Amino acid sequence: MRSILQLRVPQIDGGESQLSGLNVEPSAEGSPVAIRFRDPQIEMAHGAGGKASRRLVEGLFAPLLYPGSQEPLNDAAHLDIGGARIAFTTDSFVVKPLRFPGGSIGELAVNGTMNDLAVSGAQGRAMVVTFVLEEGLAAAVLEAEVRAMSEALKRAGVVMTGGDTKVVERGKADGMYITTAGIGTPLNGVKVDARSVRPGDRILLSGPIGDHGITILLARGELDFEADLSSDTRSVFPLVEALAMECGPGIRWMRDPTRGGVATALNELARDSGLGIELFEEEIPMHDAVRGACELLGLDPLHIANEGQFLAVVSPEYADMAVSALQQTAGGEESRIVGQVCIEPANAVLVTTRYGGSRIVDMLVGDPLPRIC
Amino acid sequence: MRSILQLRVPQIDGGESQLSGLNVEPSAEGSPVAIRFRDPQIEMAHGAGGKASRRLVEGLFAPLLYPGSQEPLNDAAHLDIGGARIAFTTDSFVVKPLRFPGGSIGELAVNGTMNDLAVSGAQGRAMVVTFVLEEGLAAAVLEAEVRAMSEALKRAGVVMTGGDTKVVERGKADGMYITTAGIGTPLNGVKVDARSVRPGDRILLSGPIGDHGITILLARGELDFEADLSSDTRSVFPLVEALAMECGPGIRWMRDPTRGGVATALNELARDSGLGIELFEEEIPMHDAVRGACELLGLDPLHIANEGQFLAVVSPEYADMAVSALQQTAGGEESRIVGQVCIEPANAVLVTTRYGGSRIVDMLVGDPLPRIC
Repeated sequence: MRSILQLRVPQIDGGESQLSGLNVEPSAEGSPVAIRFRDPQIEMAHGAGGKASRRLVEGLFAPLLYPGSQEPLNDAAHLDIGGARIAFTTDSFVVKPLRFPGGSIGELAVNGTMNDLAVSGAQGRAMVVTFVLEEGLAAAVLEAEVRAMSEALKRAGVVMTGGDTKVVERGKADGMYITTAGIGTPLNGVKVDARSVRPGDRILLSGPIGDHGITILLARGELDFEADLSSDTRSVFPLVEALAMECGPGIRWMRDPTRGGVATALNELARDSGLGIELFEEEIPMHDAVRGACELLGLDPLHIANEGQFLAVVSPEYADMAVSALQQTAGGEESRIVGQVCIEPANAVLVTTRYGGSRIVDMLVGDPLPRIC
Repeated sequence: MRSILQLRVPQIDGGESQLSGLNVEPSAEGSPVAIRFRDPQIEMAHGAGGKASRRLVEGLFAPLLYPGSQEPLNDAAHLDIGGARIAFTTDSFVVKPLRFPGGSIGELAVNGTMNDLAVSGAQGRAMVVTFVLEEGLAAAVLEAEVRAMSEALKRAGVVMTGGDTKVVERGKADGMYITTAGIGTPLNGVKVDARSVRPGDRILLSGPIGDHGITILLARGELDFEADLSSDTRSVFPLVEALAMECGPGIRWMRDPTRGGVATALNELARDSGLGIELFEEEIPMHDAVRGACELLGLDPLHIANEGQFLAVVSPEYADMAVSALQQTAGGEESRIVGQVCIEPANAVLVTTRYGGSRIVDMLVGDPLPRIC
């Protein structure tokens, strides 16, 4: 559960001594940090994972909180600490409603953070959690979410090591907001870096897109139609692990296309690599209910959030092996190659159809589906 | 910034293999986990760090999220991961108002989490942050808090390595809630464990109590009096480090008395150690404004939150050296011995006066000052 809104993570590759070295003012020597975030106030779009989120992260958070980092932002930081290399990440969850077909906020809070570690090339090991609870929340509702977290932790093989609880007055916090942070250990031989991507590399997708976002939309009951659809929330680590085992050196980049969807994740890749991405429209797996809802609502499924899928870029000689590894892993049966990396159009994502049509798909603009995670 | 509300942290002392071992259902083998949290709904007191918080943590969170752990809960988990020993902790911040004399939510969010690491006997190294922002929040207000975080990070010598941003509708978040998680490296030779505390050990306090809680109360403007008081928010690591350098082996236990105050922290120690704590009332440093406000409002200063103080239990032979080490460190000038560990009253805190008076002080009950951090 990353996406653009993740203030993403300068991969701090320095050793512990470099971390200590940073004690001496990591940022500008006395000069004020330039801020370029010019929006006068926060809008829902700043939390949507698209362009507005990116402006906020790059214009305000990054210059002040990650001064001096020139690395592409990533799903989790990998850092050397105390002589070990660990991955570290965090996410907040404000999904509305708290429960929906296929999952709930508690499950998302575990899977989302573990998935950020997974697509950074790490196995989640330990997690901490904080709850901001609304005064008056029924204890049974809270218990259901704590149980959902407990089950998700067991399935992921991750231990919870601590947490915190705050309570705010009635009317605030919609029942609860949950924040998790996770640490993990890097998978041997896997390096995720947009700058290592090359023209000709293949784009893999682990399964059908849009299920989570459309499920949340329908669960709110604001629309007049129903569909047999449920969220895809799950841990993607077993799939990432299978991919790493079979073709670790062939993996160039991974990401879970949450807020902002596949289109936003791939636009970020295009930008960070300076290359173009060609997506083969017919190859993108999608349930009919998602396609139908998007047509009715005028949404692009490529902008709809997923919670249990991931994208990977693999070098061409590993592509068949990668698809095969994923398809043979439970939950990866619908994996396929959905595109390739090109020189042109640089910094952009081009969707092509079998019959020669094509269109440029930008990052998400605005926030058509707020608070989906 | 811990306190009871911290779902406190089973100190997982196992190596990485044990962490992996936990993949195989760390909790009850197939049997449902017994939950004893019987409150029907969440009240403000569940976030106050006192008895209600403890019921929530011990009756609901711990059985489900930390199954099998028998360790006393602590300010940060220390765990072996990837061959290194690291400390790991988290806290959410919902203080109201966002800015107050002496500090602001952004500064608290950095110092609070770093202080939890410090009093667990670790030096903070890296941090992640999430923001839950309210739609309509002025960008200038957000920028001020991000700058406050940036300054606090520089002072603490800690790097931010990632984050996340969510936006919720107007009215849902009081401007912003901030959550941080931190990792650190253990200080050599320091072991914090309530079970190592012995009768005759001395209780050290780093400075005057109650400044933070009373400052927040006054900053809300709901009372008819003013005082020249500001929050004590700061990193306590330099003091902890000085103590560790001079008398590391003499340190038995440390805690920062945030929500619930000194009385709650020491009641927890009494309970976890099975011993009694005697506090010498006249020795407890306190500003007149805090004493006066507490008298007017019928509050016990021992229950008021602090953000820049810590308690330490040291073995008697190290006591003088410990006080001296703290007093010679900037910001520790008012450190002193404020009590001692006794066999009786077991599991309780007894406050004695020079003239022979005494009273038992319990943990905080209810929530007289909500949302002070």
